[in-house]
Amino acid sequence: MGHIEIYDSHIHSEGRSQKELSEMSNSGIKTVNSCAFYPVRPRYPGTLIDLFRKLEEFETYRGEKAGLKVVPAFGIHPRCIPENWHEVIDFLEESQPKIFGEIGLETAEKAEVEVLKAQLSLAKKLDIPCIIHTPRGNKAEITQKTLKSLEELRFPEQLAVIDHVSLETVSEILNRGYHAGLTVEEGKLSERDVLEIIEKFGPERLMINSDTGFTSLDYLSTVRAVSFLLEKGVEMEEIKRIAFENAKEFFRV
Amino acid sequence: MGHIEIYDSHIHSEGRSQKELSEMSNSGIKTVNSCAFYPVRPRYPGTLIDLFRKLEEFETYRGEKAGLKVVPAFGIHPRCIPENWHEVIDFLEESQPKIFGEIGLETAEKAEVEVLKAQLSLAKKLDIPCIIHTPRGNKAEITQKTLKSLEELRFPEQLAVIDHVSLETVSEILNRGYHAGLTVEEGKLSERDVLEIIEKFGPERLMINSDTGFTSLDYLSTVRAVSFLLEKGVEMEEIKRIAFENAKEFFRV
Repeated sequence: MGHIEIYDSHIHSEGRSQKELSEMSNSGIKTVNSCAFYPVRPRYPGTLIDLFRKLEEFETYRGEKAGLKVVPAFGIHPRCIPENWHEVIDFLEESQPKIFGEIGLETAEKAEVEVLKAQLSLAKKLDIPCIIHTPRGNKAEITQKTLKSLEELRFPEQLAVIDHVSLETVSEILNRGYHAGLTVEEGKLSERDVLEIIEKFGPERLMINSDTGFTSLDYLSTVRAVSFLLEKGVEMEEIKRIAFENAKEFFRV
Repeated sequence: MGHIEIYDSHIHSEGRSQKELSEMSNSGIKTVNSCAFYPVRPRYPGTLIDLFRKLEEFETYRGEKAGLKVVPAFGIHPRCIPENWHEVIDFLEESQPKIFGEIGLETAEKAEVEVLKAQLSLAKKLDIPCIIHTPRGNKAEITQKTLKSLEELRFPEQLAVIDHVSLETVSEILNRGYHAGLTVEEGKLSERDVLEIIEKFGPERLMINSDTGFTSLDYLSTVRAVSFLLEKGVEMEEIKRIAFENAKEFFRV
């Protein structure tokens, strides 16, 4: 590996131990976005507000101890919508985080679309980049609905990374001008899928991540993906773009 | 190690990854109490209520996946007292957890004493065992104040384990009829300290734990302590008492 630095653009650092954060750093992962998520649907808006404070104060502290820059991302995940979620939106406006995430649609039911649009409107107004989740089930269909929400709001393409793309969804996402997040994880993309995508579309507006967190095991999948691409003869400059530089520019870190 | 099963009576499972919970289980730790703690002082009582729901639903689920029985402990830690903490007490009364923890005093300021006593009164009324933290700083003095709170409420001794005891505090705690938690961790007790305590007082009303969690590294310290005691020739029956049986009885698991 040596000198390829990695920016893992989507993790949940809360689910990884202090020891594992150090291993990530020692393996070349130097920056991560730690996305807001709560493993049970919260009853109270305050739970998410305190979660954002935890990401901002405590997860960045754990990162520092590990030699890892943790960039907190605040947002209401579609599986984490509490009653009175408008209070969370008010806090987001007040706190102006560097990144909104992860937000998006899971089943695209009415409340999810409403919460997504409220967050996108705010991100547009405040000029904040967004990490937009797409689900495991019905990915193609829900991705379409997600793009529809973005377009209805005339959301600036350069502020949206559509994450967990598949071989099926990536083409349209890139064609419409969005960034695409390549999640290297069992059940999402394999290293070989990443190779296929980079060969077909080139490295622009692509960024890799692990989505590692509370239950997954593989917190070094981006490191393995980079090694695989190197082995397969992908050019160093291209690898650097998808492993670090695209994310660095997109998130302005 | 082989056949000595361990009950780690005080951890924060949220701070350990899925992978590490499996390692704990594979190393002989079969039951743990996962104590409520929030790494930044919560602003909202709902944050603690949702945290209890997370411990109850999600941490037990992660435990099952790892082959580890996770017993959730609910309570307001003295460093985690939110505004309107009475709402948390109401939830505790309503939800009737198996264990209250960790509760206790950190600096023994007025609000801490009030919150501790509210929880102890409820535990006495509902007959629920309590894990009672003592702090790193001023341990002897704060332990005295903790015992004073217990006695003012005529709290039943058999419902209180005073945790993180030191060589200095353990004697009085046992003499007064309480259980004592031996935390094997850098800065708390060494394996040699545990040996000294068991040789001096015998194994009754002692239980070992790691207090492993969000920032500490050593999630297998109880396993190492048990190996050390075996090496030093402590009788198997005594080790079993402090490693598993005392906790099992005290927490009624």
